[in-house]
Amino acid sequence: MKLVKGGVCAPKGFLASGINCGIRKNKTKNDLAMVYSEVRAAAGGVYTTNLVKGAPLTVTKDNISDGYAQAIICNSGNANTCNSDGIEIANRMCALTAKALGVDPKDVIVASTGVIGQPLPIAPIESGIPALKAILSHKGNSGAAEAIMTTDTYKKEVAVEFTIGGKKCRIGGMAKGSGMIHPNMATMLVFLTSDVAIAPEMVKKALSKDVKDTFNMLSIDGDTSTNDMAVLLCNGMAGNSLIDCDGRDFKTFMKALNTVTVWLSRNIAADGEGATKLLECVVTGGKSKGQAKTVARSVVCSSLLKAAMFGADANWGRVLCAIGYSGADVDVNKIDVSFKSAAGSVKVCENGAGVDFSEEEAKKVLSEKEIDILIGLNDGSCKATAWGCDLTYDYVRINGDYRT
Amino acid sequence: MKLVKGGVCAPKGFLASGINCGIRKNKTKNDLAMVYSEVRAAAGGVYTTNLVKGAPLTVTKDNISDGYAQAIICNSGNANTCNSDGIEIANRMCALTAKALGVDPKDVIVASTGVIGQPLPIAPIESGIPALKAILSHKGNSGAAEAIMTTDTYKKEVAVEFTIGGKKCRIGGMAKGSGMIHPNMATMLVFLTSDVAIAPEMVKKALSKDVKDTFNMLSIDGDTSTNDMAVLLCNGMAGNSLIDCDGRDFKTFMKALNTVTVWLSRNIAADGEGATKLLECVVTGGKSKGQAKTVARSVVCSSLLKAAMFGADANWGRVLCAIGYSGADVDVNKIDVSFKSAAGSVKVCENGAGVDFSEEEAKKVLSEKEIDILIGLNDGSCKATAWGCDLTYDYVRINGDYRT
Repeated sequence: MKLVKGGVCAPKGFLASGINCGIRKNKTKNDLAMVYSEVRAAAGGVYTTNLVKGAPLTVTKDNISDGYAQAIICNSGNANTCNSDGIEIANRMCALTAKALGVDPKDVIVASTGVIGQPLPIAPIESGIPALKAILSHKGNSGAAEAIMTTDTYKKEVAVEFTIGGKKCRIGGMAKGSGMIHPNMATMLVFLTSDVAIAPEMVKKALSKDVKDTFNMLSIDGDTSTNDMAVLLCNGMAGNSLIDCDGRDFKTFMKALNTVTVWLSRNIAADGEGATKLLECVVTGGKSKGQAKTVARSVVCSSLLKAAMFGADANWGRVLCAIGYSGADVDVNKIDVSFKSAAGSVKVCENGAGVDFSEEEAKKVLSEKEIDILIGLNDGSCKATAWGCDLTYDYVRINGDYRT
Repeated sequence: MKLVKGGVCAPKGFLASGINCGIRKNKTKNDLAMVYSEVRAAAGGVYTTNLVKGAPLTVTKDNISDGYAQAIICNSGNANTCNSDGIEIANRMCALTAKALGVDPKDVIVASTGVIGQPLPIAPIESGIPALKAILSHKGNSGAAEAIMTTDTYKKEVAVEFTIGGKKCRIGGMAKGSGMIHPNMATMLVFLTSDVAIAPEMVKKALSKDVKDTFNMLSIDGDTSTNDMAVLLCNGMAGNSLIDCDGRDFKTFMKALNTVTVWLSRNIAADGEGATKLLECVVTGGKSKGQAKTVARSVVCSSLLKAAMFGADANWGRVLCAIGYSGADVDVNKIDVSFKSAAGSVKVCENGAGVDFSEEEAKKVLSEKEIDILIGLNDGSCKATAWGCDLTYDYVRINGDYRT
């Protein structure tokens, strides 16, 4: 397996495009994205657990309930959530896309991201869709990746190449993240494409299984968005024999998918709102996978620890504190904690109590851009990883006046 | 019932004192507090739910398990948590206090607050206790209230006067709050004193019942501390006939206690780390008390909403979002939201959708120091209140480098 360029356009038969249609005030950034598969694709999705759901989610869920889709339309700048005409607007976006592309409106995935509770005007989208169609191309992935960004500071797209039964296969993906991201849902917007031939029920299975260890182990600020979704489209153009059950081919597919989703998860965390540092919490020695996951998530969610990481302060007591209130049944007196980065590694806690360490060395370790928080529970052999970011002045600045 | 001065010394027979004994680097602030009752007092406590517990909690819990106590010793600057000699040090603090006051070591409540995982030296405490004893007085409440502060910017003390069976009674209290405060535990350090005659089991009952609607409805940053506790000492010197069961007298006592704990809760929220605003979320129309509480707590805990309140941004979508992920079973389409303050009131959401409002007026309302977030669930007649504060640059500054 190797990383390749092209994002969502890397797999065979996928085209994409992005434009500024005028939803955003900032005219220099794209705000409308289209993805199109030359043939109908098996499709699966996972969605936010928030009871307040964006209208596009309801429409998308319904549209791909038959297991297939052929196009994606997504705007940024407005979430189309908590609006009385939300469903109508989302359906209209599908109809316009379908008409432009000559596909069934029920084969269109629609998504919106941005401010909640402001009506989404259809006019700019109506005039934008033909323009998007006109520039659809196999190299349109970056234009689309830009169009789905909100407060993200860089585009997040990746693709991998691998073989199944001797056939060259690819999975590509793009994501928008930044704020309002918390475990236990699909988190953020993620669009994944593949040319693998795989049955719709296996697409769903692969995605549902994968997000448990990737997007659901990621937190920026503990807020679960109303509009989060991750969808995966597989159009079969790689020509492999159809994956319709568990087995070696499905495993290969899962591994490739995981490479893409871990890459996206890490980059969403690293580019969290105001973030200066990627935090990766690796818990080992858990007595169950669930216990290890609970601990890892609690640690990356602690506001106090996140602020300490911003300040490069080895305040390990906050790690123990977050483990203690996680709800996981742990033996506090067995816990070891180390901080690790490109600058080295420093053990700060052994058997639940502090150990002598060089503050100077710890500062050096914590001044890097990627910090690993290594926790040994010494209670079994299960492990889990969670991703997060530091809490910074810029998080407050960005969110103190988001709407203006 | 009326508010009176004197804090923990307001009730008959209570003396207090505070000094700087040298645990803190800052020598201008007290760091060791003592409270003493002239007679043994019925005592009850509630404690953090964090599995990582400060050693002083374990010792205090054990000491008041017989339902009585006579003195409190509390230091700030060091939490005496995650130290291998923690229990030994906490017991030593009790023994030294007992010796100085001529009471039983098992009648001493011990508490510590500050950094986790750094050994607490006994020497400054050993030399400090006789000094504390020497200045114990009926006017020592403020010295003690200062000594328990960590990053608090002002002392939190209050007292009320009321009558039971014609006898003048008082309840006083002091608290330290600031950071690492989250619902579902005793939260922070709170010391409550009273001269009411009441049986130990009724003291426990009163406190356990009261904190559910006060300290457990308060969040600063979602972090549950290792050292939180609230204790209540009642020495009976008011001379009322002993309260040993439910009834009118117990009700009167509960009401007075609630006045003190609500005052402390509001002030702890208003003085949360870096806070510029007190947020009070009042949920009405709930179909159960539990549902209303879950909603109220979720809203005051949302980092995104807290940052919006800092920026005086009427981003009500974040209120709905926090309700949606709270876990409470609500009908989103029935929800009304208003913001209210001394500057007026503005309705922003009706039946789950936005309503037209003046941004200018909203800005004025949200620029005050106390903001009420009023949520109508329109689904029943239960209500709940939760307190919190805004998320500011200063929260990040304070917690980015707490230890230095």
